[in-house]
Amino acid sequence: MSFRMSVSPNVRKSPYFDATVADGVKSFAVYNHMYIPVDFGDPDAEYDRLLNGVAMWDVACERQVELAGPDAGMLAQYLTTRDLANAVPGQGMYAPLCDYDGHLINDPVLLKLSTSQYWLSIADSDIALWAKAIAAERGLNVSVTEPDVSPLAVQGPRAPDVMAELLGDWVRELKYFWFKETDLEGIRLLVVRSGWSKQGGFELFLRDGTRAIDLWNRVKAAGKRYAIGPGAPNDVERIESGLLSYGTDVDADTNPYEVGLGKYVDLEKTEGFIGQAALKKIKREGIRRRQVGLFLAGERVVPNAHPCPVLRHDEVVGMMSAAVFSPRLGRNIAIALIHAGIGNDALGLLVDCGDCRRAATITDLPFC
Amino acid sequence: MSFRMSVSPNVRKSPYFDATVADGVKSFAVYNHMYIPVDFGDPDAEYDRLLNGVAMWDVACERQVELAGPDAGMLAQYLTTRDLANAVPGQGMYAPLCDYDGHLINDPVLLKLSTSQYWLSIADSDIALWAKAIAAERGLNVSVTEPDVSPLAVQGPRAPDVMAELLGDWVRELKYFWFKETDLEGIRLLVVRSGWSKQGGFELFLRDGTRAIDLWNRVKAAGKRYAIGPGAPNDVERIESGLLSYGTDVDADTNPYEVGLGKYVDLEKTEGFIGQAALKKIKREGIRRRQVGLFLAGERVVPNAHPCPVLRHDEVVGMMSAAVFSPRLGRNIAIALIHAGIGNDALGLLVDCGDCRRAATITDLPFC
Repeated sequence: MSFRMSVSPNVRKSPYFDATVADGVKSFAVYNHMYIPVDFGDPDAEYDRLLNGVAMWDVACERQVELAGPDAGMLAQYLTTRDLANAVPGQGMYAPLCDYDGHLINDPVLLKLSTSQYWLSIADSDIALWAKAIAAERGLNVSVTEPDVSPLAVQGPRAPDVMAELLGDWVRELKYFWFKETDLEGIRLLVVRSGWSKQGGFELFLRDGTRAIDLWNRVKAAGKRYAIGPGAPNDVERIESGLLSYGTDVDADTNPYEVGLGKYVDLEKTEGFIGQAALKKIKREGIRRRQVGLFLAGERVVPNAHPCPVLRHDEVVGMMSAAVFSPRLGRNIAIALIHAGIGNDALGLLVDCGDCRRAATITDLPFC
Repeated sequence: MSFRMSVSPNVRKSPYFDATVADGVKSFAVYNHMYIPVDFGDPDAEYDRLLNGVAMWDVACERQVELAGPDAGMLAQYLTTRDLANAVPGQGMYAPLCDYDGHLINDPVLLKLSTSQYWLSIADSDIALWAKAIAAERGLNVSVTEPDVSPLAVQGPRAPDVMAELLGDWVRELKYFWFKETDLEGIRLLVVRSGWSKQGGFELFLRDGTRAIDLWNRVKAAGKRYAIGPGAPNDVERIESGLLSYGTDVDADTNPYEVGLGKYVDLEKTEGFIGQAALKKIKREGIRRRQVGLFLAGERVVPNAHPCPVLRHDEVVGMMSAAVFSPRLGRNIAIALIHAGIGNDALGLLVDCGDCRRAATITDLPFC
């Protein structure tokens, strides 16, 4: 099935939009009410660049929710399951957000810019509304806004070389998720050691959307000798690497323990946080589902367009969220949430892919 | 510019999805994290059906946020700018939602199912998160959920005939925005006199997604003698009719007074509501921008893909959100937010459409 994407003014364009069009983008998705490129017409080359070279991605749709003011730290602590007590300015942390029932509602990276300024670099849900409501109802002295910040990701093993060429060798020393404010000939940036792949890299958090095309072209020029090319968050690599996709792998009832994020839940945080009581109960009683990897039998799988039931003896025992063919493993791999009682050695599992049923075996994540 | 739409499992499929594919949908958009058809390949016929016949639209992406429990009424009152004191079960009301600064965050139709059950039939923002946060922080005894409800719109002057054929003549008596629960041979529905057009019609709020294809086919069969055909919320008709498009015509700072929704703000509501103080201040001080219609000169306009600045003497005096060619008027028409000081008789206005500048004149909404 192939459909035309409606490009209309109710969805925001990234400030890199025109640059990605010039570089040959072929398809888009919508994320945080903004268009995001999905492919540039050569998936094999895009995958190869990410694993063996360097790629640049327009991820401006990874919006920032800024908490600013005297109570920003208090609000940040209350919003996330992690204890931020020891976070220092310049540090980022993967910081899941739950609702009052302990269900995941987003999994941002939290950046501490100062003791009174934090950014939540969010997945696809309207966390600004959530945070605004909580701040106001608790009477906190903090403003919640979406600043003019547009991340451009540079990912892959040669990303440090490109970034060093563009910004200097100091970027090589940045620790994972840490960041530094800098200025590229007048273009204000936060340089973050981050990105939605396990191939290493950076995200340039551009602080002035009007400079986006300029920044895009500078990165492209700096990356030329490393054969940089355009790309997009890569479903194949993320599944191989076992990275969580909030919108894909998480349903309305998913808690962090089910999807391997238990280590980011600081249940005993003294300041308290949203979902704390519910998560204590879940932890005590044990989870009902768990996230696993699946190997799928049969010919090369076409990525699924919707979640698929996992069956055993014709009974639904889970849902497969995403399946791809892994070039590195030469096999079909997938991510699923299954009943916690089903062990890795379970036999007789089938995935109902709509047009066919495939035999499945469970494995631990990540695949690679 | 034409791009492929990425269909992937991080965006929900409507339960009518397969039916719209079978009926020839050509392009999609994403709304409330769900695919919505945009066109079926024949825009002139789709417009004509809506104005002169009857059309059926998959608007399952118009999600419901359910407030249920003893404090549901209290929460509903607090969330919306309208006074719901006189609303009765079976009644729907257009009910804008604002944040604490008086900025619009959604413009749902609120349905009162009972004194302890309300649905907000929402535009494209995550109001479930907003409402959950407020309910919990205020300690209200109410659950906030997204029920299994999938609206199917039947719109156009022949819609009453189709609905009467399907459900009986009683549907003709339903008042605008009122609704009734019914059962179509085992398919549970709310029949609502509503829809995002000014051509009249109904929305069938299907209460069991597994029956969607069945319902689609029954509506299609009942509409056959009226030449019913598929369609989608129609940008041309909605601009002619001056219907607000929340995602298009509203930016982060828009208040209800700017876009003609002042009559839905009950400033003196005794129970209080979010944004009340801010809206009193705005009302007192006067608005800085106002929504207007524009006629655009020049050849037939191509619908804009992004907001366009409105200029006077090379100064930006507003933003045009949406432009189309109106078949009924034989002219280019548009909707814009402009500085409040600029009168309808202003001369020398230009819209910067990117590739060209067009002379513009102001008119009141609606156009038709």
